[in-house]
Amino acid sequence: MSDSTNLIDDLIKAFACLAGVGPKSAQRMTYQLLERNRKEGSVLGETLVRAMQDINNCQHCRNFTEHDTCHICSNSGRNHRQICIVESPADVLAIESSASYRGMYFVLMGHLSPLDGIGPEELGLDSLAQRIQDAAFDELILATNPTVEGEATAHYISDLCRDQTLDVTRIAHGVPLGGELEYVDGSTLAHSFTGRQKFNQ
Amino acid sequence: MSDSTNLIDDLIKAFACLAGVGPKSAQRMTYQLLERNRKEGSVLGETLVRAMQDINNCQHCRNFTEHDTCHICSNSGRNHRQICIVESPADVLAIESSASYRGMYFVLMGHLSPLDGIGPEELGLDSLAQRIQDAAFDELILATNPTVEGEATAHYISDLCRDQTLDVTRIAHGVPLGGELEYVDGSTLAHSFTGRQKFNQ
Repeated sequence: MSDSTNLIDDLIKAFACLAGVGPKSAQRMTYQLLERNRKEGSVLGETLVRAMQDINNCQHCRNFTEHDTCHICSNSGRNHRQICIVESPADVLAIESSASYRGMYFVLMGHLSPLDGIGPEELGLDSLAQRIQDAAFDELILATNPTVEGEATAHYISDLCRDQTLDVTRIAHGVPLGGELEYVDGSTLAHSFTGRQKFNQ
Repeated sequence: MSDSTNLIDDLIKAFACLAGVGPKSAQRMTYQLLERNRKEGSVLGETLVRAMQDINNCQHCRNFTEHDTCHICSNSGRNHRQICIVESPADVLAIESSASYRGMYFVLMGHLSPLDGIGPEELGLDSLAQRIQDAAFDELILATNPTVEGEATAHYISDLCRDQTLDVTRIAHGVPLGGELEYVDGSTLAHSFTGRQKFNQ
């Protein structure tokens, strides 16, 4: 009996694999597509199948791409002497949308976390070391998250660069724009004081 | 340049067709599937494509099904002399999960709304009238939503049944279980008083 509604139930269950989608949202999505949005639903389905199959990691920066080399690594208009280390592809997107950086990236796809079995190899740090040795970078910018694991990863990578001539920098931590000092935590405030800079109008 | 990341961007955009998914959630879903859940993502994609193509309306009750007749209409173990009128497939699911009803359904896929161009034909009321005439129903239960449009639709359908011998009933409105009288609106309370019933232990 329940076999005969399989497809709708299957779709509701399949939607629940998405982040932040529970059974009720999955049901709403299913009926909304069936009732009003079949064409867009088909497009989503086809795009999903293609993306899951075709998207791999860029051989230079490990970011997601459907090609061998991503559009940032293959862009000759960018600064190939700067490299920025981030934890995830979403971080690349965030930095790109801030339009504050025009160099290369290296995406770790995580951070060092020995308890979860994530060591230097899992983050591709051997290939990063190789790349630093081969390419002539002027600067390596550590943009891992300001968490315990992110800091540990940053330290590990800066150690990798000890014998190199490039500058290793860390993005600034401090009070975010639009934030109110009153509500900023103590460690951030401490960072914002130790990192203070000359104020020029 | 932006052509080369097409597929990821396409997927993020495609996700935004889902109810309650904004650009940020769409991005999170995309990266979550790519990073950790490719297999489930492919399954979702394939199920979506199949569902959008294969799911049609049951020829008897208009509910969604991938067959000609849905599993409820084709189930000989159910009471074929009762028919319950609901606005949407989600309502059928809700009633079925309450296990309080074992009869047939008729799904309007909406309610009368002349301003939006939704009249009796759009709701399949001609085929419902035909079905009431042909089949020997004992009871027709109006389970449209307790909104202005839902009530209007209920009245229209009860008019359709004027010359028939079947009982036309409306589901009860009143204080929901677990609700507190203090927070129930006046119209609901009024309904709960006019609809009061003998209390038998």
